Amino acid sequence: MKHSDKPIGIFDSGLGGLTVVRQLRRLLPRERLIYLGDTARVPYGNKSRETIQQFSREDSLFLIRRRVKLVVVACNTSTALALDHLQEKFDCPFIGVVRPGAEAAIRETRNGRIGVIATAATIQSHAYEKEIRKLDRACRIFSSACPLLVPLVEEGWGNIRLTRDIVRHYLRPILARRIDTLILGCTHYPLLKPAIARVVGRRIRLVDSAENCAIAVRQFLGESGKGTAKRSEGKLELFVTDRPFSFSKSAKLFLGNRAPMARQI
Amino acid sequence: MKHSDKPIGIFDSGLGGLTVVRQLRRLLPRERLIYLGDTARVPYGNKSRETIQQFSREDSLFLIRRRVKLVVVACNTSTALALDHLQEKFDCPFIGVVRPGAEAAIRETRNGRIGVIATAATIQSHAYEKEIRKLDRACRIFSSACPLLVPLVEEGWGNIRLTRDIVRHYLRPILARRIDTLILGCTHYPLLKPAIARVVGRRIRLVDSAENCAIAVRQFLGESGKGTAKRSEGKLELFVTDRPFSFSKSAKLFLGNRAPMARQI
Repeated sequence: MKHSDKPIGIFDSGLGGLTVVRQLRRLLPRERLIYLGDTARVPYGNKSRETIQQFSREDSLFLIRRRVKLVVVACNTSTALALDHLQEKFDCPFIGVVRPGAEAAIRETRNGRIGVIATAATIQSHAYEKEIRKLDRACRIFSSACPLLVPLVEEGWGNIRLTRDIVRHYLRPILARRIDTLILGCTHYPLLKPAIARVVGRRIRLVDSAENCAIAVRQFLGESGKGTAKRSEGKLELFVTDRPFSFSKSAKLFLGNRAPMARQI
Repeated sequence: MKHSDKPIGIFDSGLGGLTVVRQLRRLLPRERLIYLGDTARVPYGNKSRETIQQFSREDSLFLIRRRVKLVVVACNTSTALALDHLQEKFDCPFIGVVRPGAEAAIRETRNGRIGVIATAATIQSHAYEKEIRKLDRACRIFSSACPLLVPLVEEGWGNIRLTRDIVRHYLRPILARRIDTLILGCTHYPLLKPAIARVVGRRIRLVDSAENCAIAVRQFLGESGKGTAKRSEGKLELFVTDRPFSFSKSAKLFLGNRAPMARQI
């Protein structure tokens, strides 16, 4: 087993992936993290496969040039539409958010009826459906594209009545299908957990793809022996492609008060 | 007076500017129009001045290379943050959407209290406020940034209760200031007119920046003598920077059924 003190790279279309960073810092506090948010071109969720692949390639290249030991694709849209493409293009391990979320949902469900909410591009890719069916052919998946939820999170509305009304609007058709598990298939959505939980009630389990992705990273580092040998606390570097526009507000939203300054590339 | 049969170029961050195209076709049916929607990088409204200027420069250059006689900046965010910049950089006439909207609002208001709704970047630029104050120092302007309205229009929700609730949420603070005129300061918003009209009631006049921009273009062509001499019906060419993702749905939303196919650049 050979330890590696190289950093872990993480990218997202914008700041939603910071929910993954938050979980990584909690589970792997000694690792160095480099985060890239493509804030100049956010969102990805309403764009085409080709464009999402191109942007994801450019994001990965930035991280790989900084000699990361692993790239975490902390964006459901990029994972759904570009993960295979990135694994083909680059000689570097990649971990996405879809598979860990799919595995967790299969563990959680009792009746085999799983709901997925995500961006339009993620839903249209059927990525969760394919991943879940690979692991358990008996599961039934019901999905709903929720284009308003990302801007809603970035607005910082939180658990107000209007947020719950919008969530209810999107969830109504899949709740009618008697799901018992709901995958939050976008790294922005963990910030809506209180509102979503109130809409769906206690009987439906929420699967947070950000949290499960961080668990998958810890597992990968454990199995490959690539965890850091350092005993000191890790570091987080943030990069964005646009000027940090109201960045402090957003970083606070996603990371709490311990957010470092971001640099534009 | 020398007529010009060259086309008119129009650009927007995405498809919202098609509301301007719609008005141009109505008012100037013989003109050739070339539209560029930067759908790969939409939206602009939550990005920084520098990024908006760079994107707007690239959009303009595409149109100028196609030998347009005029560039219409059919995007409030680009107009607010980049119009001066474009006029400095390029030797080509530019018409934006802010000034025509500001002029129309001054004509409409009786009590001198004008509301503006727009993207976060447009509101933060104070572009409408500056333009209105230049023309009439006595007017008071009350504004509200409405980040959810662009994705809401693109969702195609229309005049449903949830749309009106979201509109009401954004308008409540400025309605309390007794405005009698409301500028729809984003080229997406004309599609929300029925919902907005129902929220604000009959006593508040709505100023559509798309319509007023088209009127300003007609006036410019009249005064400069650059209108086409052709007697046949004009043509519309559409270009987008992303693959036309659910384009037919969107084009129908913005242009009605007469939308041509779009080409990706």
